[in-house]
Amino acid sequence: MANTPLAPLAISLGDPAGIGPEVIAKCWDHRRQFGLPSFVAIGDGRSIASIWDGPIEVVDDPSQADAAFDYALPLIQVSAADPDTPGHPSVSGAHSSLDALELAVGLARSGSAAAVVTGPVSKEQLYAIGFQHPGQTEFVAERCGVSPGNVVMMLAGPTLRTIPVTTHLALQDVPGRLTSALIESRGRAALRGLQRNFGIAEPRLAVSGLNPHAGEGGKLGQEEVEIIEPAIAALAAEGWRVTGPHPADTMFHPRARANYDAALCMYHDQALIPIKALHFEEAVNITLGLPIVRTAPDHGTAFDIAGRDLADARPMAAAIRMAAECAALRAETV
Amino acid sequence: MANTPLAPLAISLGDPAGIGPEVIAKCWDHRRQFGLPSFVAIGDGRSIASIWDGPIEVVDDPSQADAAFDYALPLIQVSAADPDTPGHPSVSGAHSSLDALELAVGLARSGSAAAVVTGPVSKEQLYAIGFQHPGQTEFVAERCGVSPGNVVMMLAGPTLRTIPVTTHLALQDVPGRLTSALIESRGRAALRGLQRNFGIAEPRLAVSGLNPHAGEGGKLGQEEVEIIEPAIAALAAEGWRVTGPHPADTMFHPRARANYDAALCMYHDQALIPIKALHFEEAVNITLGLPIVRTAPDHGTAFDIAGRDLADARPMAAAIRMAAECAALRAETV
Repeated sequence: MANTPLAPLAISLGDPAGIGPEVIAKCWDHRRQFGLPSFVAIGDGRSIASIWDGPIEVVDDPSQADAAFDYALPLIQVSAADPDTPGHPSVSGAHSSLDALELAVGLARSGSAAAVVTGPVSKEQLYAIGFQHPGQTEFVAERCGVSPGNVVMMLAGPTLRTIPVTTHLALQDVPGRLTSALIESRGRAALRGLQRNFGIAEPRLAVSGLNPHAGEGGKLGQEEVEIIEPAIAALAAEGWRVTGPHPADTMFHPRARANYDAALCMYHDQALIPIKALHFEEAVNITLGLPIVRTAPDHGTAFDIAGRDLADARPMAAAIRMAAECAALRAETV
Repeated sequence: MANTPLAPLAISLGDPAGIGPEVIAKCWDHRRQFGLPSFVAIGDGRSIASIWDGPIEVVDDPSQADAAFDYALPLIQVSAADPDTPGHPSVSGAHSSLDALELAVGLARSGSAAAVVTGPVSKEQLYAIGFQHPGQTEFVAERCGVSPGNVVMMLAGPTLRTIPVTTHLALQDVPGRLTSALIESRGRAALRGLQRNFGIAEPRLAVSGLNPHAGEGGKLGQEEVEIIEPAIAALAAEGWRVTGPHPADTMFHPRARANYDAALCMYHDQALIPIKALHFEEAVNITLGLPIVRTAPDHGTAFDIAGRDLADARPMAAAIRMAAECAALRAETV
């Protein structure tokens, strides 16, 4: 277990007209209070300079970031045709956000960066330039040669981690989309991710029900009996520590949370309501199932407040810290 | 505004084989630490005596409870054919729990009791003796001469109140059950209840969306556009302060909660996940729309731990405190 220092983290700025540049600059400002390791920002430096008067050091490679980090925010410049105005996204900015993401992933794949942290992008803008993926996660998966079906999004805060089995679906479409195979595959990816990224040798996964009171034995819906219980049994048969289906409303209080390392939830809001209620300023989105560590703050571009010095940098700081912790754990266990 | 002392509260024991007797006895034990006003327990005293060695004073009427409360737990005896064993519910116990509930409501209706707090019952046992209502709430409504459709359940904790528009429905059936009229009626009952029970002159109601991100303008479901927005507009047109539809995952963090007095949620877990994640030990179920004040702790009979001195009395204490506060507010504003 060599205790070699980590390479710097690569942080893509996200949409240059959003709050990504601001929160990354604030993270550098407060790097000591936040307890942050060296990182290099990747994107169009003009989007930072236009809203922040701190020092920026343009570098060519993450290896130059450590030396600069003490006195300036290291940045790898990704050119954009035109500088963006905060709050006013553009096609040019979307190109720069995508280029930055791609470069950040490449640096992590090559080992030059210890992990990737992604700033928030605008899907509308990305779609406008022909982006074919539902979001950054699927793009990163593809660039890493992993099928999007094998990666999962985990929301992680100090006392709770949740994984949604389904994400951006109308609620009406959730029951039809759930299958035992999908729950098993998400559960397996979550369990392996807890081992690999969080160093939990025997992770405990709590699986939620879909219906109120987890269906009350079939009286309030059949999905628990027909779909969720068989998936839990299959994972348990592989030797994983899996419990459930648990009534979703009694899974998230402090004593219940002490019984598991992550909660596998059936739909978007079931996973995101508790994590944001409990850990709004510290919830980190981490992608499991990748060959690299990738985290993101769990917020969007917030164009409505961009450029007004209103953005809260704590979620980005939490995403940077978690990326560093997971990367260090992986480095130890290689 | 006469500051006359309140009549004692009437507390039905609930199922005698559940944890109701234990948490009520513990509330009397800790009445000073919990800051509880005088109350009278209503039910089969043997179910308390079998699990608690404190003093019980059998009374005929709540008016005798104040004098006794200092040195004994006042109790109005409701006879049962046989004493129950903790953890082993019986038909006889179900009859006694229903008789106790009926008496408690009658005492509050007549003004002999300031409010009703109901201990947890077993629906299975009640159904076995021919009980026709979905739960205690509907029974109380009927006994008060109010249509069950005009009462709503609110879950209330120190920093959050939520009201589910639909409750014990399979998730699959929720979208089909939502109508603008139902949301309006629940919203109106919630707003009036906030005025009447909590003394909030101009209550602010935040209405959730049904779908992730509140449907993203129709991209993730039509219910927000077709059903929820018209209901909000109708309530606003009546002069109420109503906002939404809000994405459910970003409604429950501290800053968001500061913007409303209650959240109207579309389904059971949307309302109950955040309240139990944030306020598991203090969440109170309060029925709005009744001529009397009725609260209950937000837990069940917990037969699995009954009689083992494991039950947490804090939810019952919170229900008693809230009943007293709401009754005092109503008395002031009569």
